[in-house]
Amino acid sequence: MTFSEMLTSRRSIREYQDKPVPLEMIKAMIKESILAPNSGNEQPWKFVIVNDKAMLRRISDESKKNILARIDGDPDDYANKYKGILENASFNVFYNAPCLVIILGPSHLKNLSVDCALAASYFMMAATSRNLGTCWINLGAEINDQEMLNELGIPDNCRIIAPVIVGYPAHIPPIPKRKEPDIVKILI
Amino acid sequence: MTFSEMLTSRRSIREYQDKPVPLEMIKAMIKESILAPNSGNEQPWKFVIVNDKAMLRRISDESKKNILARIDGDPDDYANKYKGILENASFNVFYNAPCLVIILGPSHLKNLSVDCALAASYFMMAATSRNLGTCWINLGAEINDQEMLNELGIPDNCRIIAPVIVGYPAHIPPIPKRKEPDIVKILI
Repeated sequence: MTFSEMLTSRRSIREYQDKPVPLEMIKAMIKESILAPNSGNEQPWKFVIVNDKAMLRRISDESKKNILARIDGDPDDYANKYKGILENASFNVFYNAPCLVIILGPSHLKNLSVDCALAASYFMMAATSRNLGTCWINLGAEINDQEMLNELGIPDNCRIIAPVIVGYPAHIPPIPKRKEPDIVKILI
Repeated sequence: MTFSEMLTSRRSIREYQDKPVPLEMIKAMIKESILAPNSGNEQPWKFVIVNDKAMLRRISDESKKNILARIDGDPDDYANKYKGILENASFNVFYNAPCLVIILGPSHLKNLSVDCALAASYFMMAATSRNLGTCWINLGAEINDQEMLNELGIPDNCRIIAPVIVGYPAHIPPIPKRKEPDIVKILI
């Protein structure tokens, strides 16, 4: 796949076929992700692969519960606009995708979000190049339950940045509308 | 260029030919950058194009001065490891590149860093696909001087996330070493 084809092929996919993604394929995509640029070549990213729909459902329920509690404490929380769907018990934040890859790293690093976002960008492109769909699920990052964190192997000193679902698309939606680029100034 | 070729062709470039990058090429790359995924399709990114080496030098001096002041106030600052080169008056944080693209957006947005990092990732790939080199310059983001901010058209409510230099590489360095991917857990 050429870069131009990838630019227009990548979508955020929210409907998946009931078909597992081979683990070796996920590992190959992670291997491509770590070629992303990063601050001071520190490569702070770590990965958790959850290739188990039942576990995804449990993480979804845990994250929904915690985000709703957060919104209750602060109605200005940006996630308040999702309150309606989060209160829907049947809603799975991971859209019943077969696989989730969590990108995380040491919380104290100043550039952690940016570095993990760069790896996530590569990961989503690596998936597109294999005709897989992805979606970065911000609503799936709020895991507080210590037992679940242990089960996922997430170290105490780490923070989840990018939970990305992966699978074979059931349906490819049209490209979401883009505004014209906002170039505020050109100095020549 | 295929995605695989791009993965191994992209480098952080710190040595450039003395050859300007056509403005239309930069605009086309920005147009590709805004196809990046982003939180809630808010597309919060804005762009400033600085295609003027003298201005780049001024921004470099301003940013160096401010980072050194920041380090003086807090020796634990992550930039302390760069103190030596920052104190070198002849060091240009932008490596004498011919062009700088600054990606920025409204400071209050929770996901601003991530969204701008995703656009920056696309921008750097768009450059690679045109045989241009780039480097994300964290040390070039610390602009406090209000007059300079005005000159650059940076709105008061905005924050610079990604200053990315662009140009024709004078030299292509080898791929920096990557650690094996740190997959902390696989749940199947």
